[in-house]
Amino acid sequence: MTKRQIHLSAYLVGTGIHVASWRLPAAPKNASIDLEYYKRLAQTAERGKFDIAFIADSLAVNEDSHPNILNRFEPTTLLAALAGATSKIGLVATASTTYHEPYNLARLFASVDHISGGRAGWNMVTTGDATGETGRNFSREAHVEHDHRYERAEEFIDVVQGLWDSWEDDAFVQDKETGVFFDPTKMHRLDYKGKYYSVQGPLNIGRSKQGQPVIVQAGASEPGQRLAARTAEVVFSHVKDFARAKAFYQSLKSRLPAYGRTPDELHILQGISPIIADTQEEADAIHRQLQDLLLPEQGLRFLSGYLGKVDFRKYTLDTPAAEVDFPKDNGIQSHFEWMTELIRKKNPTLRELYTLLEGGANRELIGTPVQIANVLEKWFTEGAADGFMFIAPILPQGLEAFVDKVIPILQDRGLYRKDYEGDTLRDHLGLRKPENRFARQSLPWTQLTQG
Amino acid sequence: MTKRQIHLSAYLVGTGIHVASWRLPAAPKNASIDLEYYKRLAQTAERGKFDIAFIADSLAVNEDSHPNILNRFEPTTLLAALAGATSKIGLVATASTTYHEPYNLARLFASVDHISGGRAGWNMVTTGDATGETGRNFSREAHVEHDHRYERAEEFIDVVQGLWDSWEDDAFVQDKETGVFFDPTKMHRLDYKGKYYSVQGPLNIGRSKQGQPVIVQAGASEPGQRLAARTAEVVFSHVKDFARAKAFYQSLKSRLPAYGRTPDELHILQGISPIIADTQEEADAIHRQLQDLLLPEQGLRFLSGYLGKVDFRKYTLDTPAAEVDFPKDNGIQSHFEWMTELIRKKNPTLRELYTLLEGGANRELIGTPVQIANVLEKWFTEGAADGFMFIAPILPQGLEAFVDKVIPILQDRGLYRKDYEGDTLRDHLGLRKPENRFARQSLPWTQLTQG
Repeated sequence: MTKRQIHLSAYLVGTGIHVASWRLPAAPKNASIDLEYYKRLAQTAERGKFDIAFIADSLAVNEDSHPNILNRFEPTTLLAALAGATSKIGLVATASTTYHEPYNLARLFASVDHISGGRAGWNMVTTGDATGETGRNFSREAHVEHDHRYERAEEFIDVVQGLWDSWEDDAFVQDKETGVFFDPTKMHRLDYKGKYYSVQGPLNIGRSKQGQPVIVQAGASEPGQRLAARTAEVVFSHVKDFARAKAFYQSLKSRLPAYGRTPDELHILQGISPIIADTQEEADAIHRQLQDLLLPEQGLRFLSGYLGKVDFRKYTLDTPAAEVDFPKDNGIQSHFEWMTELIRKKNPTLRELYTLLEGGANRELIGTPVQIANVLEKWFTEGAADGFMFIAPILPQGLEAFVDKVIPILQDRGLYRKDYEGDTLRDHLGLRKPENRFARQSLPWTQLTQG
Repeated sequence: MTKRQIHLSAYLVGTGIHVASWRLPAAPKNASIDLEYYKRLAQTAERGKFDIAFIADSLAVNEDSHPNILNRFEPTTLLAALAGATSKIGLVATASTTYHEPYNLARLFASVDHISGGRAGWNMVTTGDATGETGRNFSREAHVEHDHRYERAEEFIDVVQGLWDSWEDDAFVQDKETGVFFDPTKMHRLDYKGKYYSVQGPLNIGRSKQGQPVIVQAGASEPGQRLAARTAEVVFSHVKDFARAKAFYQSLKSRLPAYGRTPDELHILQGISPIIADTQEEADAIHRQLQDLLLPEQGLRFLSGYLGKVDFRKYTLDTPAAEVDFPKDNGIQSHFEWMTELIRKKNPTLRELYTLLEGGANRELIGTPVQIANVLEKWFTEGAADGFMFIAPILPQGLEAFVDKVIPILQDRGLYRKDYEGDTLRDHLGLRKPENRFARQSLPWTQLTQG
């Protein structure tokens, strides 16, 4: 592959990211917990030669949660099940550094990496918990503060990646004649001792075909960008404005050299939620249909769940959002900043704010396949993105329309692969298999025993 | 099914439980991390109409560990992958109450339960950690003491089972017309507050086709039996002597009424490791071949890993085991007691002790299919077991021989099913789907909204 190509990730979530998508006449029932349905979604994304099938996660629900996350699979077990229904597409899931033990998490993703033949990735999140509800599912009084969370995360990933290198690729010699199962010089204890974690190792699983699972992140805050610049291989961003997206892209890429990394070692994918139809009128009609299915009070409750604890009963739907006191502490900071600017610029009512947050903000992405392809090409070629996280408002239709109508245009323009060129997720992303950190200086075992 | 039937679980672990099994000429390489191989094992067990395909686990390895557990899948992701390769057999894996958060663990098994269509079970262990190595993989200084571990486990299972009932079976009404996704009176927060755990809930996954995953345990100590009598639905036991097995069976079953349970609500499966061949001579030859492949120092190192930290360098292989000071604290107590009695009765050398622990102890289980079937029939009909955990010394051959040669005999005798009669693990075990604990008194939501 000589020319730079768009990378794509498909965000798979029940009937789609639009909170009213389940109410559409064609929406399948129980989609969020239907394995056959998820297999078909992943197969559709694979038909579209997507790099990644992506499963998000959360560790708490309440009556205000998005309908598609109330009753959902645990992501790593879902990936393991999807591995058997696909053969090429990368399989990435979200898991939290704040609510897992690194030894357990390292195993889960290493195991999926083996099960899928080297197609796994871990979307590493620190878990925003504005309402404190997640902490209360984990015997914790208060949620870990934002910066503290990132301090832990920095250690956490060093432990996980260190554990993933516990065994060199040729450690398991299995010499039946001599009875030597493994070369002891190629087993490595991590012996990590940090401020938050002490982990001895070795891990009880070796490296996969791609070496280690791919590291994916989405943190856009200052500590989030520092962590990403040091460790992420894919970053999801949710900036909806082109100029801001470009600024973020440049900011993050410019941090890489400080960690001895080159720009092509980290792909930035921008989140998009297009509504695609053969004509602009049809696309607008689909969007209107979705918005009409929104129950206003559900919209407001969702806003509350998204941004932190606000008692919306004090307000009406026509209250200007600028009059509402949104809590700043402990939520997802990039969301907060984006919303604050949106309120300042557009002065929406609460009703309008909800619609904006739900993805209707980028009018350019409601339209025809050519129009969508034009936007993606612009963002990709003008330095705002290496690719896109496709977060369909409606599933499965939105994904099918994208695969059948937008992807062929991108392929014809030479912007996107016509077929997979390798078997692992690292192959798709053009990332090299990482060396085992312990392997460099050690003397070959055969020399030791034969010498 | 009117007549009481034998229940069977197949313990799937690489090339088998015998520590030298990987050295046999026919042993497949990399078996412990080969998904296609595990799929074939599970399919073989399903062909034999086994109730359960069982995956054990551990959370630490070192150079003395059994070769088949150094490089292994994480069990819940493995079960999820095996679900797609099978359609009837129950899928049970080990997971520790000491090193998981109950919210995460509840999700993992509920998710496998959905992925498999109601075939999941959780083998709940508290994790013996005689050497302290597991704790050192989890940022803990010292391992939790034995009784304390069980105190936590009692809370842990209440949290997990409570979370599994977060949603009543008909909670997700998904009424497109009114926009009501779920009936809020059928979502239940657990609000658990114990000495060790505080968990709010609800869990973000509903109940499966069989209601909840089946609870499996193996603890044989006093606190282990108390926990089992209250909560276990299957108990694995590793007593190799008939009289002791019968005593254990009676002891555990007699504890059930105190918890309002009947004897048929808990199945006791005895661990067996038979070597099966068409003649006694052939079976003996296979056993001898295995024992000859044992490296003596590996045997002793394995003994150390199994029973606690003993510096065997102070001893020779011919040292009487009675002279060795085995540590009593913090290991698996039932192993310790069994070994102590074995040493007192048979006064073995260390070499002999190792062979005894490795499963060669029960000479009755090295022989012809009829002979093995006779032993199982005796144990089953004379009140020592409801069935068996089949822990093959050699895989895949041991399992294939059992399925092809022993099972037909048990079927002919009317002791074992000829085919599955249901689809879920609870169906196979004759356990009823548990009611949702929160469902009993609540008023139907339709009455509330239509009244």
